[in-house]
Amino acid sequence: MIGRLNHVAIVVPDLAVATETYRSTLGATVSAPLDLPEHGVTTVFVELPNTKIELLHPLGEGSTIAKFLANNPAGGIHHVCYEVEDIIASRDKLKADGLRVLGDGEPRIGAHGKPVLFLHPKDLFGTLVEIEQV
Amino acid sequence: MIGRLNHVAIVVPDLAVATETYRSTLGATVSAPLDLPEHGVTTVFVELPNTKIELLHPLGEGSTIAKFLANNPAGGIHHVCYEVEDIIASRDKLKADGLRVLGDGEPRIGAHGKPVLFLHPKDLFGTLVEIEQV
Repeated sequence: MIGRLNHVAIVVPDLAVATETYRSTLGATVSAPLDLPEHGVTTVFVELPNTKIELLHPLGEGSTIAKFLANNPAGGIHHVCYEVEDIIASRDKLKADGLRVLGDGEPRIGAHGKPVLFLHPKDLFGTLVEIEQV
Repeated sequence: MIGRLNHVAIVVPDLAVATETYRSTLGATVSAPLDLPEHGVTTVFVELPNTKIELLHPLGEGSTIAKFLANNPAGGIHHVCYEVEDIIASRDKLKADGLRVLGDGEPRIGAHGKPVLFLHPKDLFGTLVEIEQV
């Protein structure tokens, strides 16, 4: 079912500092910051040859990652995103196998304009997993 | 400097359960478990089309990931590994930019038989980063 690793998301306390570190110290190609108010995040894409790192910072009130940052003030790895071909079929298979889908269980349009779902980290060994239909 | 994302390492409390979940529920290709006593881990490689997930479980006394698992009994994402072409040049550049290299600062041979170093997570936004010369 799962295909490529689409991205690893890292929540950071200061997006400008993190972006500059990835650019100048780690020598990676980084995007301009992109506000995604409907997702409550500002994101910077770090382009690696085979996948992306997404640096995330809370945007606006009620950001879903604000609590994570409060609990991890230095930042931390927030989730991994695996690509799937058919998000509905994937969701139904995962649910049938006992995994919990977060929210109302219906895909929403993610940061890349594609349908996404999140799976409960307690069902996947402490790892928050996003699946994205590509 | 950094190239491909070589792998994402996830520490899991039960390697057999995690392997079976990645195989049968997530539908990924998984390896047999591999004991790496010199690294204090047993690992299973989850092969994705563009990178790997490494499921890790402590092996033997004094495993470097035993404390992580004690602090995160459900498991969790442990580190990301970026490939570099020249680990010594990379190390020297990272140190010159103020990043702390863990241990004695000399590369050791990692789980893939290649030289690796780990960078202090406090210098990289709460993320433990391994660099591996490929």
